[in-house]
Amino acid sequence: MKDKFNEETLERKDIFKGAVIDVCVDTVELPNGKKSKRELVFHNGAVGILAITPMNRLVLVKQFRKAIEKSILEIPAGKIEAHEDNPLETAKRELEEETFYQCDSMVEVADFVTSPGFCNERMVLFQAHGLKKVQNPLPRDEDEFLDIVELSLEEVKEHIRLGTICDAKTLYAILLWEMQMK
Amino acid sequence: MKDKFNEETLERKDIFKGAVIDVCVDTVELPNGKKSKRELVFHNGAVGILAITPMNRLVLVKQFRKAIEKSILEIPAGKIEAHEDNPLETAKRELEEETFYQCDSMVEVADFVTSPGFCNERMVLFQAHGLKKVQNPLPRDEDEFLDIVELSLEEVKEHIRLGTICDAKTLYAILLWEMQMK
Repeated sequence: MKDKFNEETLERKDIFKGAVIDVCVDTVELPNGKKSKRELVFHNGAVGILAITPMNRLVLVKQFRKAIEKSILEIPAGKIEAHEDNPLETAKRELEEETFYQCDSMVEVADFVTSPGFCNERMVLFQAHGLKKVQNPLPRDEDEFLDIVELSLEEVKEHIRLGTICDAKTLYAILLWEMQMK
Repeated sequence: MKDKFNEETLERKDIFKGAVIDVCVDTVELPNGKKSKRELVFHNGAVGILAITPMNRLVLVKQFRKAIEKSILEIPAGKIEAHEDNPLETAKRELEEETFYQCDSMVEVADFVTSPGFCNERMVLFQAHGLKKVQNPLPRDEDEFLDIVELSLEEVKEHIRLGTICDAKTLYAILLWEMQMK
């Protein structure tokens, strides 16, 4: 069934093809027959992992984010590589690379697009159960610099107030964690 | 205090300047002295509004999203315009334009970046209290086509299962609403 608000692409202009994102501008036909432009960012998708230690602390990584020019605390996460077709595998790899944890099981807890107004980035959120530190973890990406931090819910809330915890996937995961404790 | 993971920009290459996003590629110096590239998307920020009717239904708008080539249900939201310096004003305007509701008061409930790995888009989430339908609402943007939908929590959950509700700000707002009902 055709979507009544469907915008047909009349022309696509490729602007940029990068390692992380592609950018294009589409000329579309609106439902009223008029034309408009859509600026679009394409991304291969990512995963995030809600990981709680046996001590009931949230595992976070601190890293610098150039787009906002500061270091922030986020749940472990990472891009789905071109050769990865199962987000669960990406999540297990990222958890180990970034935090040196493996887990007994991983369950999908959310699946969302981060910013559908201009970007197709999909984020699959998993919860890891049965965390165990690994002796010889997978190596990190060469240009990845990060600290591992484990915080109580109270400490997490203070970082939200301070703005050091401030990204959508992490705030969503924290809200899920909080609900599970009620 | 200098951030120990700070990445200094050695060179910025502007790729695109659009109406919604700007794109550039920075050459940065990593903490180990090596160089790397950062693909960056700049956005002026947006607001979203959690609005619950007196009948305890969530106000949503259905609209086509070109980046994912489908129509989805989202909480009312919109970009902060260049001349707007108070996200609260943007939120009041968007609520009225998109849903024909005004409200007695609006409270900030979250403030996050949607995808800090490559984008600086900030989203401020408000909760509207005391909704009232307006007789002569503000006009919508000319190229904005949308339906207003009001759903119970049970209906909302069915749409999440179906994937018609699938974006980060909306899922976050729903989780907040659910917590408030507990």
